[in-house]
Amino acid sequence: MTQNIYDDPEFFAGYSRLPRSREGLDGAPEWPALRAMLPPLRGCRALDLGCGFGWFCRWARQRGAAQVLGIDVSEKMLARARAATADPAIVYRRADLEALDLPVAAFDLAYSSLALHYVDHLAALIGRVGRALAPAGSLVFSVEHPIFTAPTRPGWSADAGGRRTWPVDAYLDEGPRSTDWLTRGVEKQHRTLATYLNLLIGCGFAIAHIEEWGPTDEQIRAQPSLADERQRPPFLLVAAKR
Amino acid sequence: MTQNIYDDPEFFAGYSRLPRSREGLDGAPEWPALRAMLPPLRGCRALDLGCGFGWFCRWARQRGAAQVLGIDVSEKMLARARAATADPAIVYRRADLEALDLPVAAFDLAYSSLALHYVDHLAALIGRVGRALAPAGSLVFSVEHPIFTAPTRPGWSADAGGRRTWPVDAYLDEGPRSTDWLTRGVEKQHRTLATYLNLLIGCGFAIAHIEEWGPTDEQIRAQPSLADERQRPPFLLVAAKR
Repeated sequence: MTQNIYDDPEFFAGYSRLPRSREGLDGAPEWPALRAMLPPLRGCRALDLGCGFGWFCRWARQRGAAQVLGIDVSEKMLARARAATADPAIVYRRADLEALDLPVAAFDLAYSSLALHYVDHLAALIGRVGRALAPAGSLVFSVEHPIFTAPTRPGWSADAGGRRTWPVDAYLDEGPRSTDWLTRGVEKQHRTLATYLNLLIGCGFAIAHIEEWGPTDEQIRAQPSLADERQRPPFLLVAAKR
Repeated sequence: MTQNIYDDPEFFAGYSRLPRSREGLDGAPEWPALRAMLPPLRGCRALDLGCGFGWFCRWARQRGAAQVLGIDVSEKMLARARAATADPAIVYRRADLEALDLPVAAFDLAYSSLALHYVDHLAALIGRVGRALAPAGSLVFSVEHPIFTAPTRPGWSADAGGRRTWPVDAYLDEGPRSTDWLTRGVEKQHRTLATYLNLLIGCGFAIAHIEEWGPTDEQIRAQPSLADERQRPPFLLVAAKR
């Protein structure tokens, strides 16, 4: 089972204070880019892998999705997600993405925001998601960018001239990375960009669009602390089609 | 016109001494990976964009290609390529990849090794290559990896613990990069991985496989100086299909 870090009290408290937790989708700077990669939602049967507080599930319903299934392993997050809506077309289910049972050809969209880099057996999950999608169904997801996850000791560095750099090592050595973010010892899986894409292609997906997300000039003006993120993208966004 | 650095005397002399120039395809450590991404060559009409000394053109003919057109901007390289074969099914043409006229649906394979990162107007070239390929034709190419081309001051760094890193900056700022390799002021274009792939998808290609190349354990045993290249991939290999 994937490390269920979201139910760790310290992590959960920290995560709950992030803009993306307090403000929802609009609190995530990559959301406009990810939203632009989504198919039309009207009438759509949507699946959210790692739904957290359920912000996307509720948004999808507002945009006309017929039904939404939100999956998460965190009891604390699902409790908040369930408390936030009485909509019977939104169903939340607690499950580990490592061993997820999904009905066949039952969804038009599988969505996942910053969850798949926690998954150890990603090929098996993508295979199951592929079978769960109807023909021409879409998979749209974000993960931490491989350049971001690669380093054995991640962090910014400044050279003598004040140039900010992101020192990369171990990019081609895939596997677990333990980082201290909100709490100590958060475990994520580093995969190369090639691995993410070849895995999708191998499961019968066609790559439709990829985005190595960085803040726009406008976002940096509004929030100058985002500027470093243009030196190396923090997130990888992918849209693929069955 | 792209900087024709290969006809610079100092660059040409240095380039001619590289293993990949002296030994041909087998002198390039990424060749086995790139070769594995090629379609069957028997009867194939092949195009080599940036053919250099013509090693691939001759190899393709040995593997049964029906005809091969090699394109390069360097007179010096084409002179050597022409001197190396009398095969009438191999034609060499001097042309700038920035403004290349190609017949429509005339090729089954477009191949390019480490040339496209010199091209400024890549979208226009990929569009022309797409039209030059017959239905189900393949495009297989290598370029310097975006992690390799991004930095404003590329080079390895060592931290206090002796960890070798490749400091990345300016990844999302696409455009020219001037580096000193074999001679001073060699100009290449930095593009993100997303740009390469989205450009192909936008021109009607389906991404078939990508490879972020690094040396195998066996290659490192045979040539220990390659070990650093596993910290960050030097090359990006892409196979796409019409």
